[in-house]
Amino acid sequence: MNAIMMALPGAETLAAGLRGHLGCEAGELLLHRFPDGETCPRLARAVAGRDVVLVAALDQPDSKIMALYLSACVARELGARSVGLVVPYLPYMRQDAVFAPGQGVTSRHVARLLSGCCDWLVTVDPHLHRYHNLSELYEIATEVVPAAPLIARWIGANVARPVLVRPDQESEQWVAQVAAGAGCPYTVLSKVRSGDREVAVSLPDAAQLAGRTPVLVDDIVSTARTMIAAVERLKAGGFAAPVCIGVHALFAGAAYAELQAACAGRIVSCDTVAHASNQIGVGAPLATAVRHMLGLSRALRSA
Amino acid sequence: MNAIMMALPGAETLAAGLRGHLGCEAGELLLHRFPDGETCPRLARAVAGRDVVLVAALDQPDSKIMALYLSACVARELGARSVGLVVPYLPYMRQDAVFAPGQGVTSRHVARLLSGCCDWLVTVDPHLHRYHNLSELYEIATEVVPAAPLIARWIGANVARPVLVRPDQESEQWVAQVAAGAGCPYTVLSKVRSGDREVAVSLPDAAQLAGRTPVLVDDIVSTARTMIAAVERLKAGGFAAPVCIGVHALFAGAAYAELQAACAGRIVSCDTVAHASNQIGVGAPLATAVRHMLGLSRALRSA
Repeated sequence: MNAIMMALPGAETLAAGLRGHLGCEAGELLLHRFPDGETCPRLARAVAGRDVVLVAALDQPDSKIMALYLSACVARELGARSVGLVVPYLPYMRQDAVFAPGQGVTSRHVARLLSGCCDWLVTVDPHLHRYHNLSELYEIATEVVPAAPLIARWIGANVARPVLVRPDQESEQWVAQVAAGAGCPYTVLSKVRSGDREVAVSLPDAAQLAGRTPVLVDDIVSTARTMIAAVERLKAGGFAAPVCIGVHALFAGAAYAELQAACAGRIVSCDTVAHASNQIGVGAPLATAVRHMLGLSRALRSA
Repeated sequence: MNAIMMALPGAETLAAGLRGHLGCEAGELLLHRFPDGETCPRLARAVAGRDVVLVAALDQPDSKIMALYLSACVARELGARSVGLVVPYLPYMRQDAVFAPGQGVTSRHVARLLSGCCDWLVTVDPHLHRYHNLSELYEIATEVVPAAPLIARWIGANVARPVLVRPDQESEQWVAQVAAGAGCPYTVLSKVRSGDREVAVSLPDAAQLAGRTPVLVDDIVSTARTMIAAVERLKAGGFAAPVCIGVHALFAGAAYAELQAACAGRIVSCDTVAHASNQIGVGAPLATAVRHMLGLSRALRSA
């Protein structure tokens, strides 16, 4: 395989797993940081004429996006014949509308920035709430790896008599998919958000939960306010301690410790953002998506 | 004047001065930071149909560039008829060549990023060493405000019998301009750099310094290693304590305290980067450059 894969900081473990699946070469990426705060990427192996794959962690994204952008640009400058990005957690997707006058839809601007430095992008379950497809945002080829089947398989293997509980009304379709995969019922709480960190939820349907282990599932766990409010509500209702599952374990600030304090059950996430809660590996389907993209690049070149 | 000017964090004082010179409106820019580290710019006043001027501090640049990029994109999204950037200190200009295999010319990639979100850019003395002109890098209209006349005037008013000393051989032409403006002689030290922070300099021409106050001038003072090595060399030669002047006072880490400890003389900078050493105002010529750009935008629209 002609491809050479490099990891940005925080994505080393995931990249090593992907290389194992793909059997492609590791190319060391050195991100020198000058005392003045400027980043100087160095691609330690020659990339001229090769397909470069950059794997990036983009939680806490701003300075990390710059490092990724510069690394991708340098790969092109050094003659890479294609540059692809694996961004398991795609940031800025929640800013998909103007929520207050004077704001903008930053998800579009970040998409334009990333589209401008690479040929394709692969991610896991981006927050597609108002958008239906990444192609509404990205000018390049994209492929989305769905987390639902992976989470469903994990629940099937690890939770007895589960009932899925989505802590808010968004993306009911998604929780229905997970429930179908795990062969269990599901219910959805309603959420009232009054700020970045303030969240209240309504009571779930008690009959559905009786005698089952509640499994709370959400795509992004950042402040964990939504998840904690749902845990408290289940506790108040006298239900069993839930298993908490997030696709993307951002856990801003003390959020993880706060969720642990609130929840006696297990806290589990996919390994899209490196975190102590990672239990569900996305490596295999992500590798398949990368293989598709490299094949597509080859096909387009020979066409 | 139709223009509306907003400051990014760290550029508030300079922007206020510019508004005074230009007589243009202040438009509040709120940079909300979500707990997950994403930036959400909000332009508190309507910008539709107006010329937007963003004034940005880009020392320690990576996350600040993202905030500036997003703010400029949002101004366009909200219907600004032009968006201009005032970036008194233009970062990444020192990476103007490939210094080691596997590196890239990041100055070009940063220029492409900024060119993609605005209509014009104004800056003060960018580090033009291997480039001769910003138009080699930027696809948009640019104007450079030279710091040399401002520094020359300050020296003329504040230093008796000065002799200019440039701590390295780069840009001898620049120090010659400052010396000509201040009506004084100059000399240039030679510098040997062995790392980001390690610098040695040769002895200056002793005859030129006799009975004069040495004035060390440099464009960017980051680690201050170059400046400190020059101070030490002058000290060892038995010359008077120098005045140290930098255009851009980056002063990474403890650099300012270290320079203060090394140098008994004054430490002075232009106000392109807000710092305790700021003595030389760039506001008036920067305002003139902004006026040129706004006039150019108008002329191009009516053409």
